[in-house]
Order: sequence, then structure tokens, then C-alpha cells
Amino acid sequence: MTQLEYAIKGKITPQMELVADEEGIDAESLMEDIAKGWTVIPCNKKHPLKHPIGIGKSLRTKVNSNIGSSSDIYDIQKEIEKARISKKAGADTIMDLSTGGNIREIRKAIRENFDGPLGTVPIYEAAIESVKEKGGIIFMTPEKIFDVIKRQAEDGVDFITVHSGVTMDALKSLQLEGRVTDIVSRGGAFLVTWMVANTKENPLYEHFDKLIEIAKEYDLTLSLGDGFRPGSIADSTDRAQICELKTLGELKEVANKAGVQVMIEGPGHIPINEVEANVLLEKKLCDDAPFYVLGPIVTDIAPGYDEITSAIGGAIAACAGADFLCYVTPSEHIGLPTNEEVKRGIIATRIAAHAGDIAKGVRGAGLWDLEMSKARKKLDWEKQIELAIDPDLLKKRRSLQKPEVSDTCTMCGKYCAIKLVEEALRK
Amino acid sequence: MTQLEYAIKGKITPQMELVADEEGIDAESLMEDIAKGWTVIPCNKKHPLKHPIGIGKSLRTKVNSNIGSSSDIYDIQKEIEKARISKKAGADTIMDLSTGGNIREIRKAIRENFDGPLGTVPIYEAAIESVKEKGGIIFMTPEKIFDVIKRQAEDGVDFITVHSGVTMDALKSLQLEGRVTDIVSRGGAFLVTWMVANTKENPLYEHFDKLIEIAKEYDLTLSLGDGFRPGSIADSTDRAQICELKTLGELKEVANKAGVQVMIEGPGHIPINEVEANVLLEKKLCDDAPFYVLGPIVTDIAPGYDEITSAIGGAIAACAGADFLCYVTPSEHIGLPTNEEVKRGIIATRIAAHAGDIAKGVRGAGLWDLEMSKARKKLDWEKQIELAIDPDLLKKRRSLQKPEVSDTCTMCGKYCAIKLVEEALRK
Repeated sequence: MTQLEYAIKGKITPQMELVADEEGIDAESLMEDIAKGWTVIPCNKKHPLKHPIGIGKSLRTKVNSNIGSSSDIYDIQKEIEKARISKKAGADTIMDLSTGGNIREIRKAIRENFDGPLGTVPIYEAAIESVKEKGGIIFMTPEKIFDVIKRQAEDGVDFITVHSGVTMDALKSLQLEGRVTDIVSRGGAFLVTWMVANTKENPLYEHFDKLIEIAKEYDLTLSLGDGFRPGSIADSTDRAQICELKTLGELKEVANKAGVQVMIEGPGHIPINEVEANVLLEKKLCDDAPFYVLGPIVTDIAPGYDEITSAIGGAIAACAGADFLCYVTPSEHIGLPTNEEVKRGIIATRIAAHAGDIAKGVRGAGLWDLEMSKARKKLDWEKQIELAIDPDLLKKRRSLQKPEVSDTCTMCGKYCAIKLVEEALRK
Repeated sequence: MTQLEYAIKGKITPQMELVADEEGIDAESLMEDIAKGWTVIPCNKKHPLKHPIGIGKSLRTKVNSNIGSSSDIYDIQKEIEKARISKKAGADTIMDLSTGGNIREIRKAIRENFDGPLGTVPIYEAAIESVKEKGGIIFMTPEKIFDVIKRQAEDGVDFITVHSGVTMDALKSLQLEGRVTDIVSRGGAFLVTWMVANTKENPLYEHFDKLIEIAKEYDLTLSLGDGFRPGSIADSTDRAQICELKTLGELKEVANKAGVQVMIEGPGHIPINEVEANVLLEKKLCDDAPFYVLGPIVTDIAPGYDEITSAIGGAIAACAGADFLCYVTPSEHIGLPTNEEVKRGIIATRIAAHAGDIAKGVRGAGLWDLEMSKARKKLDWEKQIELAIDPDLLKKRRSLQKPEVSDTCTMCGKYCAIKLVEEALRK
């Protein structure tokens, strides 16, 4: 049985116990939320995780790190390093988005080097194998897609992105309205290329029952992807995007009824004033399924700083109810991230998630800040380093400049506000 | 006459013409907003600026760069460099917060190397001179404070932070309620130290008329500072903060009536869900005076990444109506910023301001994004570099990895979504 089926039957699984314990909540209420499809525990039942996590209602907002090779850069060692960096920087999950080199070997290596949930986008492997075996994405068969999904499930993948809402209808809507950046999702682009060339409906939509069958067998959580997510502020919250979201909501219901866990993916490039509405729409159209957002990126003009544009959007989204943030690195729109960029992306996204958690009142979120502020007030630098989201960086930066008065810093030096006020008010 | 007095008389000044032109708005309506105290043009009338800027209603959200020496690090050359970096990175204004070395010489050097509005916090120089001349901040006299303000105005300063709302009443309120981090504003700390030791009211409050007299003579814009801004999430939006804000609103009215331009400064450490309310409160309690915010920093736990915590808060504040963002650098809470940190602080804050401008509908804000997205769709990298908020960085990062297919990037390489879709939909 899947976590969802156990929950519906009123049975608390060991995974639910672990998650409830980590979150400091009641296992019973967690189980009820899973039963309603409001929360998921992505955990391949044939490869049980040591560290399962919960994503959804009232839980700490989780952070995903996207790693993986590309057709230009494919080195298994680099991906192992990125998996280790992701773990150290505090990513809750990893998605392996490899499209270059030996994809299966890379996936297995990442799996071995990360003990949290692992996600993939199987259409990548299916499309690339079709290119290699038959000379083009357009020659991909539905069987190939489902074979790849099954293979990835066998390898221990816990959740998969499937762009089942990229339908002919949504595509028509996109073409009718017109867009500045059309389609920027790689999975969405693969599927549309195939659909247009074959004049056939998306197999991940048409054969959704096959998808459910495999998902159920492994308790593979379906992350229903947004192939039509806007790739520019100008395209945000348009008819194609909402058309796809509505379909995802319908598919979510079908999957849940079959006992399959579901998350919904969301945009993309969205201006600040539309972020809250996007979260609301997802919750309404998809029956409060966990919302997994990429960014949102709130302005298009900052390549090189997209960990910041997306931290802004991610924080606002988390505050409004998004449950799971996919990181964006400084190299988004530029190239495959380096190790340092992977780290920066994770830290920026963790900041966004945590700031959102304080604001939406996730249990205990503010305690971390309180401890840090107490350490600041005491000018206790050891404690500040220990509590910092990136202790290594704080330690290194602090050692760079030595203040004359050793417990102050070089910003205010001997005119430290905290010290002055402590003396003025306490003596 | 001051800009405000001209505006009240219905006279459009050359500065108003320049600002209206830069903003692409009507000079008449700008003048009306200045007359109401909704917008300011900080411009010392004895040293007219080549590039005056407007701060306030319907205008592009502006960005300030804080530079200046400390008691630990005081090197005039370093400050000249930071002034030049601030200009290149796109700061609209600079505040010289020097507290070390020859403060006046540093101020003059910064003035010579930056052609936009320059701000200061005169209480710093007054306090430090009192320490040097008399052995302590507590021996500072009201005359010293006003002498320094006059001297700084003579040197061409355009706006000054004065913590006139740090009153005995507000201090009582702070002590009664209790705080985790008490007072973190350096100016606030200097004044409270003096007030407690002398059991006297804040001279910047008690002798506000003297302040107005000098401000009027030079058309020095008063930036009424928040000496009691919260220094931790736990202290946000408390009674001391709001008590001070109310006083600032009252003083704003007094100053405006005398023809003196006023901005109001705001927090500080504020969780996301309180940012909008803080902007609303400022607008209501201070009759829609321009709101100049530091951050807000939305979580305390990320020293080393406070350009991100504050970009989140700044973007939300700008979107809600804040007019002017003071940058926060990655070294906030750690030490005096390096050149690279000054640059990062400015870029992060410009991103926040711009994202806010798109969301609040500042005229033409979205056009920049539209141009960038069109260049992205065309895979026109030269244009993307030209349009990027940091062209140097994008150029450098792009040259780091060479994709096999030259107009793609190493993220998707030959599986570039934009290229695939262009082929699928256009042929």
C-alpha cells in the first residue's frame, strides 16, 4: 500500500512517525492530512528512505536542489559532489535532471550519496534515448516513456515530474493568446515537439492510468509539472498556464482516488503582486494539494542574481501557502550551476522558505531567530556562528576583519550600539 | 526658497523639470506631490546637484548605498572607491556614515566622487567630536549637534538622518515592554546614552525648531530616523517603534509647514507578514511622507546573506508603497562592507526596488523585463548582456562555460527548450 492508502485506512506508518517527530507535530493529524491529499511523503516503497520528509499543510516549507548533467557537461564525479554539497547546505530533496552522459549511472550515484527523497523528470531520459536510438524526440513512443518511468522507480526514485497537463487544448490556448517566451520548460518542450510532429495527445495525459499503475506499485509521488509555466513576467498567469493548472487539479483527483500521492508544480516568472493569487488558484483548483514552486522569479532582468529574484518570490509564495520551493541558482538563464552556485541557490531558498515559515506561523519557526538575536545581543560570536544558516561563511567573514574591541565588529567598532545601550540602560 | 516652498507657490523648479523628465512624468503633477509632502527632491540649495532625484509617490523606488569609515577601518581612498562602485552599480544616493578617521575630509571626498544626493547622520560626527574633545558622548551639547549639522550642510550634504523621535516617552515605552535586542540604531544609541546620563530630552526633539531653521536655509531634506527600529524579528512592530513613528508623523507636519522637506525612516527586522502593515502605518501616521526603509530584514538567521533577507523585505515593502530602499550588504551584522559587498548590496536592492516597481505599477517598469525576455526568446546573448542589471557579471559568467551549440547555454545545451519550441511551432 502507498502512504496515502495507509492514511485513508487510518494507519500510521513508520514514515509518518518519523515525519511527525521531525516536525514536532501529532502523527494522527499528519495522517489525516495525507489522507486528504494535503500532504505527501515521497518515499519509494521498494527502497524505503532513512530520512523521509513530509511536504504539505502546516509543515516546514521544504527546499529542493536541482542537479544533474547536461549535453555539454556530464561528469559523474561532479554530480556526486553536487549531491554532497546539497546535503551539507541543507536541501531537503534533490532532483536529478541529467540529460548528458550515462544518465542511469549518474542517477544511481546521486541516490547513493543523498539520503533524502530523490526526484527526476523521466521524460528527459525517454526523449534522449529516442534521439539516440531513433534519431529524434518525435520518434519517442508512449511505451518508451512508461518503460523509463518504471526503470527509474526500480532505481529508487521517490517522486517524478510528469507534465500531464500539457494537452492539445492548453497548447491551443497558448498559441491563440500568444506569448513572449512561449514554452521554457524542457519537459514541456519535449512533449510539445512530439505532440505537434505526431498530431497526437500527450501520452502522459492520455495514458494517465498507466502512470497511476506504476506510481501505485512503487508509491512514486507524482509531481504534476507545469510545462506551460511562464518564462517571463509578460506571460505570467495567462490562459495557457491556468488551463494547464485546471487539468492538473482534475488529474490530482484521479490519482488520489487510486491511492497515488500528488504534488502540483507552479511557476516560474511571476510579478510580486500575482504570487499570492497563484498560490490561491493552485489550492482552489487542485483541492489543496501540496504546491511545489520554481521561484517564482519576480523580475527578468537579473541573470547572475536569480537566487535573489527567486528568493523574493519564493518567500512570498511560502508565506501565502506554497509548501515546497525548488531552488534557483545564480546561473539560471546562463548555464549549468557550479558547486558554489548550487550552494548559494540552496541557502537563498532556505532563507526564503524560513522567512515564509515565520510569516505563516509554522510551529517553532521563529525560535531559531530568537536564539540568534539573543546571541547578537550578548555579542556572543561563537553562538552566532553556530546558529547561522551558513556557519562556515560567517566564521570566515568574521575572521577577515579584526575589530579593536574584540567582541564588537568593524561596522561600528567602539561605537557599538548594543554595547552603548547595554551600559546606558543597565548600569 | 526650498523645493517645497516653490511647489506650494505653484512654481516648477529646474530640479523638478529634471526629475519629471527622468521619470517620464508630468512636472506639474510632480510639483503638486511635492507641495503635499508626498515627494521630496533632496538637493542642498547652496550646492545644486547635477543629477537631482525625486523620492516619493508614483516614482521609481530609489536605492541608497551606505558607505563610510568606522573606528576600525578609516581610509579615505577606500571610501572614494566605494563611492565610485556605488555609482557604477546604480545607487541613486549615498549616505556617508563615517565614524573613523577625518570624517569631514572623507565626506568631502565622497561628495566630489558622487553626483547624486548625499546623506549623512550628523549625530555621529557630533558624538565622536564630543568623545575626542570632552571624553564622552554624554558631554555632547545641543550646540555641538547643531554646529555639526550646519557644517555638514555647508559641505553640500542633501539629506540628513535625525532621530528626533527618540524621546523620553518612547524610551519609557521600550523599557516597559522589554526587547530582545533593545536599540540597534547607532544614532539612537548615542542619543539614549546622552539622554539617560543627562536626564534630559533629546535635543533633536526639544529643539526641533533649530533643526528646521538650518534645514530651511540649505533646503536640507530631513530624513526622520527610527532610532528604535527593531533589531530582531522578536521586537518587530512593538509599542516603542510605533510610539516613535507617531512622533515622526507629528514632526513631519511641523517641518512641512515651515517649508522643509521630510522623509520618514522605517525598520529594520520585520517578518514578511508585517511588512505591508508597516508601510500602511507610516503612510497613515505620517501623512503619506516618502518612506525610506532599511531592509526590512525578514529573518535574523542569515548573517552573510543579508542582502537576500533584505531584498525579500525591500521588494515587499516597495510593492506596498515604500519609496526608498536603503541597501543592506552581505556583511550586515558582521563588519564594514568590502567593495564587492557594497556592489552586491546595491544590485540586490535594485532588484528588490525594480520587482516592487513592476508590482506597484510604476510607469514603464515592466518594459525592461519585456526587452530582456524578447532577447532571451531570440537567444540574443549580446542583447541580454546589455540589458542585464550587471552586464559585467553576465558576460564573465557566460564566457566560463562554452556550449556545443553556440547560441544555447550549458544548462540545456542541444535540448534547449526555446530552440525546440521555436522549431516545433514555427515550421
